[in-house]
Amino acid sequence: MDNETEKFSILKLTEKGSSSIEAEVAREVPLTIILNNQELVTLLCSPTDSKYLAVGFLSSEGFLRNKDEIKRIMVDSERGVVRLETVEDKEFTKDVLFKRIISSGCGRGASFYSAADATSQKVQSQMKILADEIFVLVNEFQHSSEVYLATHGVHSAALCDNKSVLVFSNDIGRHNAIDKIFGKCLLEDIPTNDRVIITSGRISSEILHKVAKRGIPIIISISAPTSLGVKIADNLGITLVASVRGRRMNVYTHGWRITPDGK
Amino acid sequence: MDNETEKFSILKLTEKGSSSIEAEVAREVPLTIILNNQELVTLLCSPTDSKYLAVGFLSSEGFLRNKDEIKRIMVDSERGVVRLETVEDKEFTKDVLFKRIISSGCGRGASFYSAADATSQKVQSQMKILADEIFVLVNEFQHSSEVYLATHGVHSAALCDNKSVLVFSNDIGRHNAIDKIFGKCLLEDIPTNDRVIITSGRISSEILHKVAKRGIPIIISISAPTSLGVKIADNLGITLVASVRGRRMNVYTHGWRITPDGK
Repeated sequence: MDNETEKFSILKLTEKGSSSIEAEVAREVPLTIILNNQELVTLLCSPTDSKYLAVGFLSSEGFLRNKDEIKRIMVDSERGVVRLETVEDKEFTKDVLFKRIISSGCGRGASFYSAADATSQKVQSQMKILADEIFVLVNEFQHSSEVYLATHGVHSAALCDNKSVLVFSNDIGRHNAIDKIFGKCLLEDIPTNDRVIITSGRISSEILHKVAKRGIPIIISISAPTSLGVKIADNLGITLVASVRGRRMNVYTHGWRITPDGK
Repeated sequence: MDNETEKFSILKLTEKGSSSIEAEVAREVPLTIILNNQELVTLLCSPTDSKYLAVGFLSSEGFLRNKDEIKRIMVDSERGVVRLETVEDKEFTKDVLFKRIISSGCGRGASFYSAADATSQKVQSQMKILADEIFVLVNEFQHSSEVYLATHGVHSAALCDNKSVLVFSNDIGRHNAIDKIFGKCLLEDIPTNDRVIITSGRISSEILHKVAKRGIPIIISISAPTSLGVKIADNLGITLVASVRGRRMNVYTHGWRITPDGK
């Protein structure tokens, strides 16, 4: 965790007066992604799992479909650069980059939408989950981020099955946290269908597209969704659960995947 | 507020079982900005103050410096388009768009950083504020967003003087909320120097650059900052106050602008 946070001497003001304390803050660093020798983008992110973030970003944005397309990945953590070469040395044109959509949400969220949107297909999974399993997963999720507990400055994401968290990530951006999950899944052949994704952030349209693209049937957030998030989840056959707090949750779409306990 | 939210029939699951309720959700819509007949970007945002958002975005990204440069603004709310023409019909090249940085933070945050960064100069303001004035402002700020209270799905931003909120905005993205403030300031000749900006979102590097560009000496957040946010605030002479809760606050940089009450 040392690498993910930084300490600053700050002044704490309360009713009782002021005191000098040491505050732990989430680190933010730039990460430049170079695809086939062309500089694609610089993300602002947390300084961990850079390789996963780069691969997840490229996959989310439609530049990369599977592991076999990757020839080489070089990570230069010192300079904040990930270079990725594909087997086919495809050049992307500046036109791909030109038409872009910038998401609202907490977290990065620029998207090359011409490339990215077409791939969102309806999720067919028949996976089901007990309400109680969701509460257990969210509880595990919320206790997994030391960085959040120390700084309150990062988002988290997790890929889960019915019983436990399989892949977990932190990032100052909610989009980055999810891309890190999917980058790891792609590189390490971890299946994503019939799985659950949990996010600490709000669920907007772009988050839904990311999740749909991986065939994930259930998305859970401890925050709220947007209207477009709800509509896309509905259209794409994804179960959207949000505002999970203690033993309460709101099920926005496709509630047939959730079985109330013992009922 | 009707326009900013949408109602969905959802299922609420609690320990006591499930019930069908109507949930109010923050609306998310696309907004395309066309600058001098060239499509620049599509933002995902809340459907209010589109003109302010477009102008604020163009100003934050360095495409627009002042009101006199604007020849005409046409807002098509139905289609989600803002067209802006400048007096000088300058074309932007695709190269401007090519090198871009994507911020971490909650809220949009793609930035054309080659254009945007150079303009951040040290803030010279000698403005001071009482700790108690900050608590009063934050309290007013937190009670100003009906949309947040109804949906928990939007961020807010406010421009204030020592005594009260002058300009207030909501958006599903924290960057958008701040750009709406600055768009309104630019169009309506509202000065920003010697003023305070309050945000509900985390303070990352890009937020700092936006604020520094308008010469604002004090930024306040009810959330946490990132390490780069703290460093840039320190370098640019900006007072950064974060994690304001009740009668407590953390002062990260340039605390000399804050006078503890009656001490």
